Amino acid sequence: MALQASSRSLQQRRAFSSAQTSKRVSVTKVRATAIEAENYVKQAPQTLVRPGIDTEDSMRARFEKVIRNAQDSICNAISEIDGKPFHQDAWTRPGGGGGISRVLQDGNVWEKAGVNVSVVYGTMPPEAYRAATGNAERLKNTGDGGRVPFFAAGISSVMHPRNPHCPTMHFNYRYFETEEWNGIPGQWWFGGGTDITPSYVVPEDMKHFHGTYKAVCDRHDPAYYEKFRTWCDEYFLIKHRGERRGLGGIFFDDLNDRNPEDILKFSTDAVNNVVEAYCPIVKKHMNDPFTAQEKEWQQIRRGRYVEFNLVYDRGTTFGLKTGGRIESILMSMPQTASWLYDHQPKAGSPEAELLDACRNPRVWV
Amino acid sequence: MALQASSRSLQQRRAFSSAQTSKRVSVTKVRATAIEAENYVKQAPQTLVRPGIDTEDSMRARFEKVIRNAQDSICNAISEIDGKPFHQDAWTRPGGGGGISRVLQDGNVWEKAGVNVSVVYGTMPPEAYRAATGNAERLKNTGDGGRVPFFAAGISSVMHPRNPHCPTMHFNYRYFETEEWNGIPGQWWFGGGTDITPSYVVPEDMKHFHGTYKAVCDRHDPAYYEKFRTWCDEYFLIKHRGERRGLGGIFFDDLNDRNPEDILKFSTDAVNNVVEAYCPIVKKHMNDPFTAQEKEWQQIRRGRYVEFNLVYDRGTTFGLKTGGRIESILMSMPQTASWLYDHQPKAGSPEAELLDACRNPRVWV
Repeated sequence: MALQASSRSLQQRRAFSSAQTSKRVSVTKVRATAIEAENYVKQAPQTLVRPGIDTEDSMRARFEKVIRNAQDSICNAISEIDGKPFHQDAWTRPGGGGGISRVLQDGNVWEKAGVNVSVVYGTMPPEAYRAATGNAERLKNTGDGGRVPFFAAGISSVMHPRNPHCPTMHFNYRYFETEEWNGIPGQWWFGGGTDITPSYVVPEDMKHFHGTYKAVCDRHDPAYYEKFRTWCDEYFLIKHRGERRGLGGIFFDDLNDRNPEDILKFSTDAVNNVVEAYCPIVKKHMNDPFTAQEKEWQQIRRGRYVEFNLVYDRGTTFGLKTGGRIESILMSMPQTASWLYDHQPKAGSPEAELLDACRNPRVWV
Repeated sequence: MALQASSRSLQQRRAFSSAQTSKRVSVTKVRATAIEAENYVKQAPQTLVRPGIDTEDSMRARFEKVIRNAQDSICNAISEIDGKPFHQDAWTRPGGGGGISRVLQDGNVWEKAGVNVSVVYGTMPPEAYRAATGNAERLKNTGDGGRVPFFAAGISSVMHPRNPHCPTMHFNYRYFETEEWNGIPGQWWFGGGTDITPSYVVPEDMKHFHGTYKAVCDRHDPAYYEKFRTWCDEYFLIKHRGERRGLGGIFFDDLNDRNPEDILKFSTDAVNNVVEAYCPIVKKHMNDPFTAQEKEWQQIRRGRYVEFNLVYDRGTTFGLKTGGRIESILMSMPQTASWLYDHQPKAGSPEAELLDACRNPRVWV
């Protein structure tokens, strides 16, 4: 789920001259213009919410603090393992909101690791509202009611390591509010999750990863883990292949069935356990030897990752529809991916084992 | 536009055993089941239309002949340049229809070149009808009328060369019929086009490619080229980036505004000029020296190709929604692609020139 948003990308704003060898035809304006253009800043401000309007004790400001702290601590932990620092881009918008993208590209351990934080005040088309909430019911009988005003704050991250024995990991945690719109009262909800995408099945690693999140869930509601693990397996399904993109984790959306304070606590606990759930697995495998064939298999699995993100992922859809900052939304793409025609792992091979686990989700803890 | 379709992929049908290290949970059946499972055959039958029902003089049978012949002649031409033969997969379905996928993978000149022919008797969900026709008007006031019965025959192809100075090329030509459905009378239409995606701008090459198709168009209707060139630039727009995936060509859909015989002649002429439009450009550049940086730029452009195909392409959407044969639909994916965070070509560089031409479509002839 990428929440970074702008009406024009950095690429489009950076002018470049170019030889014009032929006649030009007029350019159609095509990008969504729901969100104001970003102003790049050297240093991210203390807060991205609107000062004086969204006060320090508001859920908006408090959630921002949680994700900003998480961005710092997670990037520090990753950087320490990789040996390379993150590059940072930060921006604000005239009407409030902004974002901080941190990317470690071409690292020693990670090909690409990105952690984005963003705060958005914007309006979305009803289709994006549907995509964002995943709840079509809310939109029945609303007709063409124009755009829906919303606030969103979120952290999102994808990390693609080099070594095919190190899993890719994704997480995102977000808080949404919509204003009253077309007879539908203002809504608030939390969403998020952390999930893992290895190229090979290592049961102990999956027990560690899922175990960490089961413990987090159990601290807040004994029903959470079972519910959110199942939801994760359903959500990350690549429908046209009948397989999940990875080996699960937890996923939740539209969560507003209890006191927001309790959900904030749960979200905080979840995002604060990313490092504990993921890093020990990477450290264990980052120096594993691997073959060209194993690297190729990783590339094929990354192709699946791309298929899921571009065809099904709600956050990507939302970002593209609201005119989000493309480089931040598509930071989730792997640095390299591959598609081979009709590739079939050999029966009984470790590659076949992974595919089986993606087709038939297992209960790891 | 991939028309290959099946209810289960080859991958899913090939059983493999695999160590089961954990408890299993039940698998949800998720793939569309609009089209019968395929039976793989060693040799493609003389015709894929229903013998005795769709007679030799029917448009269905005649269009199939055009695309089968084109598949043969185009694959021969490509194979001769590459030095490597195409691999063929062919299948039929109990109720009629089938397909022939030909793929040249890991060739000397092409990383991946595929030419698919397919004939489909199926039913599609109304959303896919919309995606297939691109015409929402037809579907107004129809409510939930179940699935739409259709016939489709088509040829589709994508060719991704190794050398970054050789362009990727895509074409597809298709003929559709729908049966009467929910008060909407049966429809027929032709669609298709050929378009080119270089990583670098070589104006003479674009003049040759566009010139070939302008000549084809002019032989049939002096208004065609202008109309279909513009349509191509509109269709292949990657909306979220405000850039086209390539440098255009021709594109048309829903074409049924005149005698079908005339459109058949035009489609035949267009598909029979693929080799003439494309191959001289490849031959000219296949031995060009290139740098690692140029190869990287090609990979980035391939990432854009993937973005277009998975997010916007009507044919891919149609294929995925009707439960098509995944390996054939996604044959259009490049063998390798890359995403780099916020990659910006240097002002005045050949890479910036290409980007400019993708953002501001030019008139080449």
